[in-house]
Amino acid sequence: MKPAGPLSLNTITLKPWSLTQVIEACARHGIPGISPWRDVLQAMGVEAAAKQIRDAGLKVTGLCRGGMFTVGARAAAIEDNRRAIAEAHAIGADCLVMVCGGLPQGSKDLPGAREIVRDGLATILPEARAAGVTLALEPLHPMTCADRSVLSTLGQALDLCDELGEGTGVAVDVYHVWWDPDLARQMVRAKGRIAGFHVCDWKVPTTDLVFDRGLPGEGVIDIPAIRAMAETSGWTGGVEVEILSNHWWAQDPEAVLREVKARHAFC
Amino acid sequence: MKPAGPLSLNTITLKPWSLTQVIEACARHGIPGISPWRDVLQAMGVEAAAKQIRDAGLKVTGLCRGGMFTVGARAAAIEDNRRAIAEAHAIGADCLVMVCGGLPQGSKDLPGAREIVRDGLATILPEARAAGVTLALEPLHPMTCADRSVLSTLGQALDLCDELGEGTGVAVDVYHVWWDPDLARQMVRAKGRIAGFHVCDWKVPTTDLVFDRGLPGEGVIDIPAIRAMAETSGWTGGVEVEILSNHWWAQDPEAVLREVKARHAFC
Repeated sequence: MKPAGPLSLNTITLKPWSLTQVIEACARHGIPGISPWRDVLQAMGVEAAAKQIRDAGLKVTGLCRGGMFTVGARAAAIEDNRRAIAEAHAIGADCLVMVCGGLPQGSKDLPGAREIVRDGLATILPEARAAGVTLALEPLHPMTCADRSVLSTLGQALDLCDELGEGTGVAVDVYHVWWDPDLARQMVRAKGRIAGFHVCDWKVPTTDLVFDRGLPGEGVIDIPAIRAMAETSGWTGGVEVEILSNHWWAQDPEAVLREVKARHAFC
Repeated sequence: MKPAGPLSLNTITLKPWSLTQVIEACARHGIPGISPWRDVLQAMGVEAAAKQIRDAGLKVTGLCRGGMFTVGARAAAIEDNRRAIAEAHAIGADCLVMVCGGLPQGSKDLPGAREIVRDGLATILPEARAAGVTLALEPLHPMTCADRSVLSTLGQALDLCDELGEGTGVAVDVYHVWWDPDLARQMVRAKGRIAGFHVCDWKVPTTDLVFDRGLPGEGVIDIPAIRAMAETSGWTGGVEVEILSNHWWAQDPEAVLREVKARHAFC
């Protein structure tokens, strides 16, 4: 199998660092891509960040994250997504990664929550199109359905893309989709619509539903097999390493970064 | 919506108790059904248990569990499943619940693991048919894919039923399927093939991937909606309460039992 395409570093992988530090580290280590989260982007200031990223010659593989349509007041969620689109445009991000939100507080109405997500996406899509920002719908692992994402499978995300049309795509994170018995078929269906490809690994045992992800090779996901599916469907954008991990966040970020580079071979 | 059908008590809900104690409790509380796990059944002795269950007039809604085809040597797994079929027959269980097993130790070959499961089921099916024991394929939540069940969705379970034919069915546990965007369609497809209906609840937050289930009403699952789908597909067997919970196991079983009965109304 041919090697994985170029690395991109999702800033949350090095959570203890500021965005400036992550940009400098990418340059220092020859990592050509970056994907910031909005909190560190806003902390640095969008204009300053855009300039430093541009000066460092980094490709911005995504901005994390828009979505969360089911949280709080609808108007506030839409407004926040508008700001996210503007930020993604300002830093030249390939896409805005959409983490769509779980059940509304106190609700058991899952079909209703999925309607809210669809309506929210439809509402912001014209502005995303105008800004040239692809909305990358990211299905999250079903264990996050209650509190993070009612968008649970790649098939469901592609159904939404079919419905919403131009300006939408999918973010495929191997952690969220590896278990899916329908994965191979849906990855074929995703042809030309993959807007992001994220890697990490599923540890055995997994001790936390959110913050216990492994680096590539630490777990049981056949990452190269899923990457090959993505490449067969036209993906050429390399691999974005996004690790939410209490364990790795407690280590020296410089050591984590060396480990991430070494584990490019497991992607 | 009409009330849920009769209760059945899965013995693991009252883990601190022996099978004898659970049988006595069902009789004492007027709970008409029981579903033993094999460890407590074997600890009591299959013949003695069969007699006491019969004398108490309890319906046996299932035996937990066969499966685990991917764990250890294949021949040993098949042999253990043969014993499970014999035990299910001996206690007059409506079905043998199949928890099929995760990835083999050290493996990342998920399609291969799914082949092992299919082959294992096909191997034991003739004996199950001869014994009149339905193999109830239970899809487990995708978060258990690595270490408990590569059978992850109801659609996948029904595909296996289609392939294997007579003598197979599905066990629907709301905890494992509630998140599935394809659930309504698959529940229609399950018509006449539902062999067990298990209830518990998804807590927010959930702090353990296996042992943090809630009693009905403690969480966010719309249990009556899923029950209605099952009933539309011909299910008349009531609700089996199966709670794996470090929290509830630490309480007085008699108090847990009262709570289970009170929460029948949330099913």
